[in-house]
Amino acid sequence: MTHLVIVGGSDAGISAALRARELDPTTDVTVVVADSYPNFSICGIPYFFTGEVSPWQSLAHRTAADLEATGMRLRLDTFATGIDVAGRRLAVRTRDGAVEHIAYDELMVGTGALPSHAGIAGLDTLGPDDGVHVLHSMGDTFAIDAQLAERAPRSAIIVGAGYVGLEMAEALTVRGLRVTQFQRGPQVLSTLDPELGVLVHDELVGHGVDVVTDTTISAIAKTPSGVTVSGTQAGEPVEATADLVLVVVGVHPNTSLLESAGATLGAGRAVLVDEHMRTGLPHVWAAGDGVVTHHRLLGLTYLPLGTTSHKQGRIAGENAIGGHRAFAGSVGTQVVKVFDLVAARTGLRERDATPAGYQPVTTAAAADDHKRYYPGAHAISFRVTGDTRDDRLLGAQLVGRRGTEVAKRVDTYATAIYAGLTVDQVSELDLSYTPPLGSPWDAVQIATQAWSAAQTAAAMI
Amino acid sequence: MTHLVIVGGSDAGISAALRARELDPTTDVTVVVADSYPNFSICGIPYFFTGEVSPWQSLAHRTAADLEATGMRLRLDTFATGIDVAGRRLAVRTRDGAVEHIAYDELMVGTGALPSHAGIAGLDTLGPDDGVHVLHSMGDTFAIDAQLAERAPRSAIIVGAGYVGLEMAEALTVRGLRVTQFQRGPQVLSTLDPELGVLVHDELVGHGVDVVTDTTISAIAKTPSGVTVSGTQAGEPVEATADLVLVVVGVHPNTSLLESAGATLGAGRAVLVDEHMRTGLPHVWAAGDGVVTHHRLLGLTYLPLGTTSHKQGRIAGENAIGGHRAFAGSVGTQVVKVFDLVAARTGLRERDATPAGYQPVTTAAAADDHKRYYPGAHAISFRVTGDTRDDRLLGAQLVGRRGTEVAKRVDTYATAIYAGLTVDQVSELDLSYTPPLGSPWDAVQIATQAWSAAQTAAAMI
Repeated sequence: MTHLVIVGGSDAGISAALRARELDPTTDVTVVVADSYPNFSICGIPYFFTGEVSPWQSLAHRTAADLEATGMRLRLDTFATGIDVAGRRLAVRTRDGAVEHIAYDELMVGTGALPSHAGIAGLDTLGPDDGVHVLHSMGDTFAIDAQLAERAPRSAIIVGAGYVGLEMAEALTVRGLRVTQFQRGPQVLSTLDPELGVLVHDELVGHGVDVVTDTTISAIAKTPSGVTVSGTQAGEPVEATADLVLVVVGVHPNTSLLESAGATLGAGRAVLVDEHMRTGLPHVWAAGDGVVTHHRLLGLTYLPLGTTSHKQGRIAGENAIGGHRAFAGSVGTQVVKVFDLVAARTGLRERDATPAGYQPVTTAAAADDHKRYYPGAHAISFRVTGDTRDDRLLGAQLVGRRGTEVAKRVDTYATAIYAGLTVDQVSELDLSYTPPLGSPWDAVQIATQAWSAAQTAAAMI
Repeated sequence: MTHLVIVGGSDAGISAALRARELDPTTDVTVVVADSYPNFSICGIPYFFTGEVSPWQSLAHRTAADLEATGMRLRLDTFATGIDVAGRRLAVRTRDGAVEHIAYDELMVGTGALPSHAGIAGLDTLGPDDGVHVLHSMGDTFAIDAQLAERAPRSAIIVGAGYVGLEMAEALTVRGLRVTQFQRGPQVLSTLDPELGVLVHDELVGHGVDVVTDTTISAIAKTPSGVTVSGTQAGEPVEATADLVLVVVGVHPNTSLLESAGATLGAGRAVLVDEHMRTGLPHVWAAGDGVVTHHRLLGLTYLPLGTTSHKQGRIAGENAIGGHRAFAGSVGTQVVKVFDLVAARTGLRERDATPAGYQPVTTAAAADDHKRYYPGAHAISFRVTGDTRDDRLLGAQLVGRRGTEVAKRVDTYATAIYAGLTVDQVSELDLSYTPPLGSPWDAVQIATQAWSAAQTAAAMI
């Protein structure tokens, strides 16, 4: 009977545990969880703040009891402090401060990522009691919730306008706070081209969010009137004050446990693993936001996403008990809802593709989600990127109203990219059509046809 | 300058005309249209009856003026009567009864399909004046509309429960008629397995439609109380009377023009064409509901669908002016909205796959459209079919509430089938996730994982 010990109770760790138990119910599985909240949906936290998800316990994908019913053992509030690779023992500090050693046959590490501070002065000393927050764990969630409940803040500053920043801008606006959002780059949601990011920007402004772009926040300080952030915009100083400040400027891989054990770091200073989730250390596997990402178009990169963590964790769990599965690779598919808009992307944009050696070109298009004669049609905005050498589909970005099935339309492109299709082959796909829900050429095909037509036109010049 | 003459003003014909003009604006294009309604969306007609689309003119994908603005010439109310293949001349009967000959360099025939009568006695003599209708053209539409407007029917019988029959059951119910729907087979929407068809059945019944299955209607007669249909159910006679009877039991290809000219018939007694839409007659091309369908999993079959007609027409238009494009083949993707349900399918079911030489097995599953903790989650019901020999994905069927993105979720399967993926590879797809719109494993992946798990379990027995 294999004893599989897993460090981390989030997507990668729990996926590994479930898969091992599913494939071989004789596997003895212990999951070491640093806090009391295994298998919580971190992606769902913004919807706890909007009030759409309540109580917070419902954010659990599965309860601890559900997990234990599958036959795994949970060690909650237990912090992994070291790996004795040669001795196959994991050192942990328990809830009461005691040090223990857990023997393992196979070890799977899914310690995830930690919030970045982006060099902002003051972030290391200020915290929730000062009205300064990050958001990456249930502990962070409770801290923000406590401030909202007990101190009734009327204004908030959000530093960062990525996925979590945008969702929290919506959530705090819904909760009645006046929100100011700072973004370092020229446009919010920098994972989209600015031509589409501006649609998200407009949606935020339309709902009352004060969006300030091209601004680098460099310091946070407690002041008599609240919390003051300061930085620069085009060389000029910028300052703003609010009751609550949330810094959501990305994450970095939490690698200390594996690094101390001798693991190698790779892209993004994440732990290097192969497609089988092997770390190179004997009997030590790793998966999730702490490891590099195999990308079908980019090779090795670092792109932490929950969907990828689930896939990697499932593979690590299978291989740790003797399987031979390889991770097929990410294509970087992402989607976010911001108020009534949905923005999605998959694959590469020109700025991602060019440094990777592709010869990309991007074409914009707009197409209705369904036949215009049927009520409720809305145009979806597209940007399709293909390689001019071989016509290969490299990426797609789309933004549309909620209800225009943007989230599942991006999946058609993601599947096409997975399969290595050309832009032109998207027109060959037999996609569904009924007037209330589509068009004889689906919007995703109208967009790729626009790319092909632009290439033909360019060739004739 | 090539003179391309096209017979038929629906999906295939107009697609061919548009493509030829797009690729070579010097092409002289004449489209011969039997009625006054070129480029109308036949699929949209039920929504004219619900009242959601008004006026009827908005059912045009493009107006005659739009079409002529692309540089094509329209010959409306002009009926093609014969092809002089050797002389490259098309004989037509004009609106005033005159016979004309139109010389062509290339001819593209898209005469579509005609409504089937399924051997029902009385259908050949009764018509709209008697309250008996078929529904395949704008003329049929006006006839039904006239009866609804002028004679205020209170009850309707619909013979057939395929796509159009179901949509019209909804439409006439919305219009306040008491609808009885007869279906020959054991369940409505026979393009789905009955295990999913029953969900559509329940939706109809829940909205007041009286659904009668396993019943063959064999005769229609005018009676003092209205129109009476009669037939048998399990050997017992069945009879019903209503003010309006609509027979929508499928279509057959309208091949007379090409057959007279010497074309060969193939599957479904449709005109045989190759992947380039060549009929075998010199300079004569054909596309749409009148020709055989190249299917990626079945080879040659007959599966008339608007999406396929658009693709075939576009290819015929390109090749008629010198192109070399091949139709990549249908995978039979279809979707229908019935009241608040959406039902979709792509690829093959066991009953389609077994006769074609596959070794299919089907697994049922249910999965939420998005995270259950976020409001408005609904389970989607799936049936996934794969080949037990090589794990190839053969087909998928899904039924969910409107808003669960079923229409675009089926497209992920359709794309996977196009690309020849295995069931297991669907789990490798990098699909989008945000809690309001999906799950870390999308519902389409949960369904394929259920298929794989069932295979593993079966192998262990």
